[in-house]
Amino acid sequence: MTAAAVVSRSASRVDGSSSTSSWTTRRLYTPRCPSSAEEPALFSDDDVRLDLLRQRAFNLRWATVPADVIPLTAADPDFPVAPAIREAISRHALEGVFSYAPAEGLPAFRNTVASGLLDRRGLAIDPNQVFPTNSAASAMFLAAALVLAPGDEVVVFDPVDFLFAASAEAAGATVVRCPLDEQGRFDAGELASLITPRTRMLTLCSPHNPLGHVLQRAELEAFAALAEQHDLWILSDEVWSDIVYPPHQHISTASLAPEIARRTFTVLGWSKTFGLAGLRAGALILPSVAHRDQVLGLSGAAATAYGVSTLTQVAAVAAWQDGWPWVEGFLAHLQGMRDLAVERLNRLDGVTARAPQGTYVVFPDVSAKDPDASALVQRILTQARVALVPGAPRWFGPRAAGHMRLCFSTSRGILTQALDRIEEAWPRV
Amino acid sequence: MTAAAVVSRSASRVDGSSSTSSWTTRRLYTPRCPSSAEEPALFSDDDVRLDLLRQRAFNLRWATVPADVIPLTAADPDFPVAPAIREAISRHALEGVFSYAPAEGLPAFRNTVASGLLDRRGLAIDPNQVFPTNSAASAMFLAAALVLAPGDEVVVFDPVDFLFAASAEAAGATVVRCPLDEQGRFDAGELASLITPRTRMLTLCSPHNPLGHVLQRAELEAFAALAEQHDLWILSDEVWSDIVYPPHQHISTASLAPEIARRTFTVLGWSKTFGLAGLRAGALILPSVAHRDQVLGLSGAAATAYGVSTLTQVAAVAAWQDGWPWVEGFLAHLQGMRDLAVERLNRLDGVTARAPQGTYVVFPDVSAKDPDASALVQRILTQARVALVPGAPRWFGPRAAGHMRLCFSTSRGILTQALDRIEEAWPRV
Repeated sequence: MTAAAVVSRSASRVDGSSSTSSWTTRRLYTPRCPSSAEEPALFSDDDVRLDLLRQRAFNLRWATVPADVIPLTAADPDFPVAPAIREAISRHALEGVFSYAPAEGLPAFRNTVASGLLDRRGLAIDPNQVFPTNSAASAMFLAAALVLAPGDEVVVFDPVDFLFAASAEAAGATVVRCPLDEQGRFDAGELASLITPRTRMLTLCSPHNPLGHVLQRAELEAFAALAEQHDLWILSDEVWSDIVYPPHQHISTASLAPEIARRTFTVLGWSKTFGLAGLRAGALILPSVAHRDQVLGLSGAAATAYGVSTLTQVAAVAAWQDGWPWVEGFLAHLQGMRDLAVERLNRLDGVTARAPQGTYVVFPDVSAKDPDASALVQRILTQARVALVPGAPRWFGPRAAGHMRLCFSTSRGILTQALDRIEEAWPRV
Repeated sequence: MTAAAVVSRSASRVDGSSSTSSWTTRRLYTPRCPSSAEEPALFSDDDVRLDLLRQRAFNLRWATVPADVIPLTAADPDFPVAPAIREAISRHALEGVFSYAPAEGLPAFRNTVASGLLDRRGLAIDPNQVFPTNSAASAMFLAAALVLAPGDEVVVFDPVDFLFAASAEAAGATVVRCPLDEQGRFDAGELASLITPRTRMLTLCSPHNPLGHVLQRAELEAFAALAEQHDLWILSDEVWSDIVYPPHQHISTASLAPEIARRTFTVLGWSKTFGLAGLRAGALILPSVAHRDQVLGLSGAAATAYGVSTLTQVAAVAAWQDGWPWVEGFLAHLQGMRDLAVERLNRLDGVTARAPQGTYVVFPDVSAKDPDASALVQRILTQARVALVPGAPRWFGPRAAGHMRLCFSTSRGILTQALDRIEEAWPRV
């Protein structure tokens, strides 16, 4: 680790016009040597292009905060994407042919996703079950709109990402909350007790945002058995499925059994694994090919009013074809950052932080210091100049209160500096 | 013009795996010399990359038809996009930072559109009135969803592109058709007679798809006066506004007067002018900044479930900043193709073809040969191996019957070959 300050606390607000050359003069730490000349470290402090992030990283991140603030907010990596992805986009772009894509998605996209799910998850699907979406979030809204109607009930974990409730409510359904324990586990008996004749869909998120729990086979089977028994749809958000730390392993819900697959909508994304949030890349895996016409109509794709940019599909294909070695390096780096964050957070008075089994967020319980956490997060922003996400019920559900979320997909230097500052600003009493 | 056949009628179906090198060996005509060594022709036969189009051009075009068919169907150029756009995308992509864009669109996108509308259309707006959309079609659906409710009536021209009716009906509104004459002009008295207490929106398309009429100031003023008098919203589809032939000139509806602008949704696109259909680039210009929160919520953008790829926004910015010289050359080429198509079509027995004032489609009346036109279009596909769009009521409204639409945004060689083949297959009696 380099010693110098990574993000100067005295820096003035960035005007958005910073260029590569001005960045060079603003670097405050000494470049470290890559481990070998042939394979430069891709996840070092120097790999973080703060100049570009300050122009391009919105959604509570670098482009939206004063220059002296470190944003560990939205779960979005601070590192440039895999070289294979950059090159594939550039090559396609320079050829200059951007004609209409098919409403159902490029054949290469659908085929690559289908074969990737088979290879990596043991999940056999028809490429016509793959529907490219404008984001994982869009896939969740489409799945909800496809099968829910006003009066229906949907079971949503508590806590969990707000998109589960938002997508169900957008379809007119009522959300019923199933509490999780601090680790992120549900109680099958409690889940069963929440199912009524109006229940139409069960939802799950594994790896879990924000608790990081990766559902084990026995847990998934208990969950799926309830869906079978009560003839319910399953919405399985697997947007975090590649960010899992050993010895844990992700299991795709639909891979449990063909009869489970037939009732499961699987949500995939390219943002968390590959850093493509800005390209709006997601996919909805349909329970059957029979749903395809429905999703083409409902989304607007059949009328050319919905679709995913061909360059985004090209990027997603390159990611799944050539991006996995990069992901391995990313994961190794993330595991180090996870351990660092958890260890440092647990040192603070009144904090209990669990190491997530997956994802790159940690969600410490800080209720001993602030039952709401909002005031604490505000204090950290003001005094430590570090932005975090409070565990507000509107983002994560009622049981998120008293927690805060910290995203650690950044470099060691930036994370260390943020943790140092949090420690310094931490309330003593 | 080169002499040899451009698209071999004996060619077998393309397998989708053709590469640049195999294309080189498949070229059937001699490259012609560019007019000057410094400024190569960008719109020659050799500029058409059939190898790439056969892999990438869907929506009834090259990738969806047998290899011996020339598709003059969807209005999408056969030429690669402006070099400035290719380079801007490539540059951005190679930097590798694709973080979340702002829900309301990149500042550069909104500022470029606002200043471009001022410079090119005399239309002064706040950049916060610019909302980037997933396509022009998506912008139409959003505008309709923002202001229409079940029971409302919307006046839609007949004929006109199906998206007007589709977007109004998706919002639950009822479509009332206002007939246009063969040139594309409406009768103000007739339009007035269609307005009822339930009317909520008037819609217009200028330049008009498929008739090519460019509304003159007096026509626009008569239209806008009715909207004012009855306090109606206006949906002004200006996706074709850059493809206008001299001496005609496009006038933006919202530029008529500030009180008209306050009731007008303007729809913009990058597909027709710049060939970016596959990138899903459009914009909705809101009547006022006050509509912004509404559109952010309704679209799903506020919940991250809707948005436009940053690379698409980068491409759109490059187009409006550096793409206009390319558009000038494209327009000059298109004017030649328009004159060729109209002249050749009028030579055919029982055909009346008007030269469009704008757009790159021609919509001849062929009712003397086939009152429905579908059988004729089928005959041309089967015998001439040229694909056209029949003037089917479901695509263009009831008054489109007896017409067919031909898109001429291709090279002289391809268009000539298509017209030769149509002439040969044309019914003699």
